[in-house]
Amino acid sequence: MNKQLCGNAVVGQSGGPTCAINATLAGVMREAKQHPGRIPVLYGMRNGIEGLMREELVRLTGRYDTQEQLALLEQTPAAFLGSCRKKLPDPAEDAGFYERLLAVFRKYDIRYFFYIGGNDSMDTVAKLSACLRERDYEMAVLGLPKTIDNDLAGTDHTPGFGSAAKYIAVTMQEILLDCAVYRVPAVTVVELMGRDAGWLTAASALGRGVTGLEPDLVYLPERRFDPERFLADVRGALARHPNVVVAVSEGLRFADGRYVGQGCQSGARDVFGHAYLAGTGKVLEQLVRQEIGCKVRAVELNLPQRCAAHLASGTDLSEACGVGRAAVRAALEGVSGEMMTILRAGSSPYRAEFGHTDVAAVANRTRYVDDAYINAAGNHVTDACCAYLLPLIQGEPAVTYAGGLPAYLTLPPGGESRSR
Amino acid sequence: MNKQLCGNAVVGQSGGPTCAINATLAGVMREAKQHPGRIPVLYGMRNGIEGLMREELVRLTGRYDTQEQLALLEQTPAAFLGSCRKKLPDPAEDAGFYERLLAVFRKYDIRYFFYIGGNDSMDTVAKLSACLRERDYEMAVLGLPKTIDNDLAGTDHTPGFGSAAKYIAVTMQEILLDCAVYRVPAVTVVELMGRDAGWLTAASALGRGVTGLEPDLVYLPERRFDPERFLADVRGALARHPNVVVAVSEGLRFADGRYVGQGCQSGARDVFGHAYLAGTGKVLEQLVRQEIGCKVRAVELNLPQRCAAHLASGTDLSEACGVGRAAVRAALEGVSGEMMTILRAGSSPYRAEFGHTDVAAVANRTRYVDDAYINAAGNHVTDACCAYLLPLIQGEPAVTYAGGLPAYLTLPPGGESRSR
Repeated sequence: MNKQLCGNAVVGQSGGPTCAINATLAGVMREAKQHPGRIPVLYGMRNGIEGLMREELVRLTGRYDTQEQLALLEQTPAAFLGSCRKKLPDPAEDAGFYERLLAVFRKYDIRYFFYIGGNDSMDTVAKLSACLRERDYEMAVLGLPKTIDNDLAGTDHTPGFGSAAKYIAVTMQEILLDCAVYRVPAVTVVELMGRDAGWLTAASALGRGVTGLEPDLVYLPERRFDPERFLADVRGALARHPNVVVAVSEGLRFADGRYVGQGCQSGARDVFGHAYLAGTGKVLEQLVRQEIGCKVRAVELNLPQRCAAHLASGTDLSEACGVGRAAVRAALEGVSGEMMTILRAGSSPYRAEFGHTDVAAVANRTRYVDDAYINAAGNHVTDACCAYLLPLIQGEPAVTYAGGLPAYLTLPPGGESRSR
Repeated sequence: MNKQLCGNAVVGQSGGPTCAINATLAGVMREAKQHPGRIPVLYGMRNGIEGLMREELVRLTGRYDTQEQLALLEQTPAAFLGSCRKKLPDPAEDAGFYERLLAVFRKYDIRYFFYIGGNDSMDTVAKLSACLRERDYEMAVLGLPKTIDNDLAGTDHTPGFGSAAKYIAVTMQEILLDCAVYRVPAVTVVELMGRDAGWLTAASALGRGVTGLEPDLVYLPERRFDPERFLADVRGALARHPNVVVAVSEGLRFADGRYVGQGCQSGARDVFGHAYLAGTGKVLEQLVRQEIGCKVRAVELNLPQRCAAHLASGTDLSEACGVGRAAVRAALEGVSGEMMTILRAGSSPYRAEFGHTDVAAVANRTRYVDDAYINAAGNHVTDACCAYLLPLIQGEPAVTYAGGLPAYLTLPPGGESRSR
């Protein structure tokens, strides 16, 4: 690739929102602003690749990139530009789709393409990158990782995960204190996100070694779920103290592969074919009620896990922004077809560096919790797991409040479409 | 009452936990410390009146009342001393119960009794106070209000409510931003606590006039719920924009008085006869799926509403502590048989003062949301409601973190029992 490629840039956000995806966007904006000679204008695509196809571009350069705007953007959850869940067609089957995309790139002289998303979004980046190699249009295409699930291959962890993990760790502390006030035997089942990977559920144990407060039992989807074993574990915990708290992943499966939450779900699947999961906690609540008979309740932490920006991890936001800046620098140096990565350059003290890896090796793959991070009984995490996770939740960014609520940067609906 | 009553004091916490009940405890401890000549020792009862009956007393004076301990206590959610849900017997029917209580008071020379709780706990205070009037034992008995539900009569609002309202207001902002990222029509039903009073649900609208972000529809239990009307409201909102967010109270009832969530609940009742409510959001999710057919999900904010101390309201914590201090001062002045109250002494700027009212007039009553605070259509709150609520969520206390998690003050289990 021509190392002195000059032209405009476009950035998009895709997949589920997080607390840090806007920090990555801010990082792209901050770095692009430093190189006006190479990147005259940075555009944002509304609702990801879907908006790009409709030429719904927002000019970011000079409109949304003051220091004050960028600081607000970094504390705003969800996706400033909007998002989409769009699976791109196979280039061999629908070449027309890619020709239409190229027409948009040519029209706006887009030479840098940044796409912030999870493993499904990396599929988009991989396909676009592969398609460009066969066509006469030079453009740097880079994927920027983002997912609360921490399930992307090729990176030590993902931007967005640390904040979700901090929300879960802190909320679990508060729930443990809340559950401890009565002396009546009671079981509280806390259901956590993460689909088929247990990283978020593991974060519920982070009080260990810090406050000493952690759930009695932690079940990750990396181990098949045995109801008899679960009941024996819960009975054992109740024998030790009256207030038993159990953390479970939404993605738990029985030995035969069926989801535990399947009994309570619609069977709906998203466009990528992932089962829509809900209700694992409720199923286990019923099981405890029927088989043990004590007071029991299920708590699903739900959406706040991915949008509780008021409790973001300082480490996460800082790295999320850093990934955005590093992506722009890499693109300017000629890197393309890669996903940016975070490398753990040091453990004590913790230190991160940014790198990149072939996006095709990341797309559509899931990184599971390491075996060494799950205890032998399969009902809790190990100290090594806590040591891996703990640096990622450090730091409490100062949030700007106005009138009792956090201040945000938001985009007026529709108004900026087709701006140039 | 003898104005120069001298003796020890005891303080207890009762009913459901909040973020502010420990701030009220800290207020009692701070003020008692100022009067060592009148109150030589302040004890805490473990698990409320139940622990008192078992003589499970914790000496607080000189053990847990350093400035550092008190500051940590004020940011610790749930109930430092533990709680209970114990309905006292009718004094006419079980005089022996009260004799046994009196024996404990005499043994420890308890002359001041402070009980922090909601309307059920005020029943305890009223009965104890009435019983003492007929017996030869001088003791000041005071109730200190606490409930996230804000449903206590005789006070402008209750300690604990402001923090829960702030958690709901902020979390609703984050959910609204999260839900806005896609363009696919979708309904999100957010279920909020509050039993038969809609105060907490009303707090979901607090973005109005601050950020401009508020739910499309808000349904309070003060208005009977009409499913047809609800569906028409939701269809109307979907016609305006694709991402509809609805806030509903757990305590919504149909015209015939049945709870909307009744279809999904066990029918269990607590010891005070209150129905255990859950599932209103899930019932409405199913209704929208069947009748409208768009993407829909229910989110139940659940326990974090009452224990998310990391996002407490500064105004709430300050008033909660103030109520504790004022109660001690009132007791020293000879007040007894009263519940402490918060008066709104000014609106612009907001200013609170502390008073007290006959506890018998408060016990077992519920204060509902004023008619003037609900719009004519019964599907949202009025500006007057927001004006009442907004001062209560102001202020963000600096939380001390260590190792990425908030620091707490906790009591070792059992160890301090029967200490003197």
